[in-house]
Amino acid sequence: MIDRSHFEKLDQGDSLAFARDRFRVPEGLVYLDGNSLGPLPTHVPGRLAQVAEVEWGQDLIRSWNANGWWELARAVGDRLAPLIGVPAGSVIAGDTTTVAVYKAAAAARRLRADRAVILTDSGNFPTDLYALSSVAQQFDAILKVVEPGEVLGAIGDHTAVVCLTHVDYRTGRRHDMAGITRAASAAGAVMVWDLSHSTGAMDLDLSGADMAVGCGYKYLNGGPGAPAFTYVHERHHESFANPIAGWWAHAEPFAMAPAFLAVNGIERIQVGTQPILSLAAFHSALEAFDGVEPGDLRRKSERLTSEFIDLVEADLPEFEIVTPRNPDDRGSHVSLAHPEANRIMRTLIAADVIGDVRPPNLLRFGFAPLYQRFVDLWEAVDRLRHIMDNDHWRDAPDPRGAVT
Amino acid sequence: MIDRSHFEKLDQGDSLAFARDRFRVPEGLVYLDGNSLGPLPTHVPGRLAQVAEVEWGQDLIRSWNANGWWELARAVGDRLAPLIGVPAGSVIAGDTTTVAVYKAAAAARRLRADRAVILTDSGNFPTDLYALSSVAQQFDAILKVVEPGEVLGAIGDHTAVVCLTHVDYRTGRRHDMAGITRAASAAGAVMVWDLSHSTGAMDLDLSGADMAVGCGYKYLNGGPGAPAFTYVHERHHESFANPIAGWWAHAEPFAMAPAFLAVNGIERIQVGTQPILSLAAFHSALEAFDGVEPGDLRRKSERLTSEFIDLVEADLPEFEIVTPRNPDDRGSHVSLAHPEANRIMRTLIAADVIGDVRPPNLLRFGFAPLYQRFVDLWEAVDRLRHIMDNDHWRDAPDPRGAVT
Repeated sequence: MIDRSHFEKLDQGDSLAFARDRFRVPEGLVYLDGNSLGPLPTHVPGRLAQVAEVEWGQDLIRSWNANGWWELARAVGDRLAPLIGVPAGSVIAGDTTTVAVYKAAAAARRLRADRAVILTDSGNFPTDLYALSSVAQQFDAILKVVEPGEVLGAIGDHTAVVCLTHVDYRTGRRHDMAGITRAASAAGAVMVWDLSHSTGAMDLDLSGADMAVGCGYKYLNGGPGAPAFTYVHERHHESFANPIAGWWAHAEPFAMAPAFLAVNGIERIQVGTQPILSLAAFHSALEAFDGVEPGDLRRKSERLTSEFIDLVEADLPEFEIVTPRNPDDRGSHVSLAHPEANRIMRTLIAADVIGDVRPPNLLRFGFAPLYQRFVDLWEAVDRLRHIMDNDHWRDAPDPRGAVT
Repeated sequence: MIDRSHFEKLDQGDSLAFARDRFRVPEGLVYLDGNSLGPLPTHVPGRLAQVAEVEWGQDLIRSWNANGWWELARAVGDRLAPLIGVPAGSVIAGDTTTVAVYKAAAAARRLRADRAVILTDSGNFPTDLYALSSVAQQFDAILKVVEPGEVLGAIGDHTAVVCLTHVDYRTGRRHDMAGITRAASAAGAVMVWDLSHSTGAMDLDLSGADMAVGCGYKYLNGGPGAPAFTYVHERHHESFANPIAGWWAHAEPFAMAPAFLAVNGIERIQVGTQPILSLAAFHSALEAFDGVEPGDLRRKSERLTSEFIDLVEADLPEFEIVTPRNPDDRGSHVSLAHPEANRIMRTLIAADVIGDVRPPNLLRFGFAPLYQRFVDLWEAVDRLRHIMDNDHWRDAPDPRGAVT
């Protein structure tokens, strides 16, 4: 018999428990949607007010130099680098995640223009598949989409680029990053990872990978629609070609020269002037990771997801757990299949437990190790059990669905 | 003899004088850099705090529907539409200006894939030229760059796209929008305008034009790096192809379908999740235009620039005015050539008159009709005369240059 005190004890022994105070999570709310939008770090509103009232309001155009706006995208990248496990100077923030995928995949394709195939899998986030289709069309490649388990076998002599999302947004299934990267490298392909459902929840081994992208608003808590980030291995900093030439990637941006000349460095992946308010919030939000090691995040994430799976198995037998049981094969969210997923989740949200749904039939729960309490797992399952026992969900209409 | 009282009288008769109170301009500062970064509208910090603390902090993921985040890019567009003189529903905010140029020009090129030439001029903003080069390369076109005065004569049977910036960022020279658009349309070419140095300072006649883009942070005062906007004429809403397919342009974004199916409408130009904090600031900032007609902005802009030109002619003979004297041929900024432009502007900024420099030798002054006072023109020229008379600028090193 698992009871609430079991989870209270886990919270007492949680070495990351201190970090929850770095966030404002509304009292009484069980927030398990951090994999779609992380909560507000306590210090961000003050920083945003300073950027608006002082930097914009008083310093005005001078802030580009005086307050570091010009360097802000790189400063965000330098805070992200240890979370991704790559050197400072090889990550930069900017643009949306889909534009970042487009830029990275096109740049990767041009590094191997002599080969025909861009390889991805059907578990990739749909917008990644859309962007990869655009890249294939415009850069004369074939987009090959295989099942997630068939990726390793599909890498070969024709593979120009392998582009995968590390953790499946639906099932939570996690690719063997090191193994696939090794296979891609051995075959002479360029390896690009989408880390949107990984960074901020686990340690990563990008050794040998060429590029990576990710989003800022999930486990990184960078704010709604926070800019994306892009990693490019240093060995490509003087050779890769951004498909969208823009002045922020120019070797001398203020020379206003008519011809484009790409800068050497991670700034080469930039395009145009970035949204400073959103970027400043993202930069500030990353302070919530101060003193936190990615390995500690991963250990807690494994425990959170394991405990949740155990609890669901014990108390919610009418739900099918579609997330892998082996911790090495999963990320930091757990999905449960049920034909009435939409109406059940809507009812659960009304009971102050926020997860989301993924069509056609998945309830998805994200466990952000930086601020999640173990006792919240118990609360979530307890309230869900109550809803199922009383058929409360039968009154709910289908929701429109949430935004990832 | 022109004296200060002349400008004080102009301020007393200014029908837009009320709008200055909608902004926080630091006391004592003469701010003539609105064409690079507009000042802070008074009500924006409060709105930003609400978005951060309530919408993000308390409502969390629910805000996408409950607080209109999902519709925000379109809501910004609907506020911009009357300022641009186009119907609501045909403008949307998002991405950076350079990415917006890339998307619009590529979409335009694909509307006329049977022709070879993308035509632009050497007065275009450099980053537009870079983006157009990328489009030409990736979509199998030739980029033809002519002198600004040669555009009309260069439009012909081979012209697929004409892409121009309305107002030259250096000289302030303004294209005949209606005339060039007519010529492009008559030749069967697709017309794309960059309105970055126009919108918010003047009325515009986009009749017959196919697309337009512009930036949010200059005369629109949307905040540092505010998202760009894109206009697409309704006749193309079901046919144009965005070069970067992404889920925000999907007909059913929440179906998470593996195949891309473009929505019909202006949302088709979207790509990925937008930076909501920056977008909300932009949306809020546009309230400063409430009750203001673009024609009134233009009339005041003409008067501001005329008065400034007269004053410079009278008091600053060592500067060459490179901006056209005929009001119909200029936008809302005035540039003065001087071999020591950099050091002079640096000294002027230290004297609390903020303009900027454009290489190699231009001092640039922007006159934002929404909040600019006439007396500030007198202050600017008076302080500049003082600097020149006393050779103060000789002590200044060369600045790095400002960000446009």
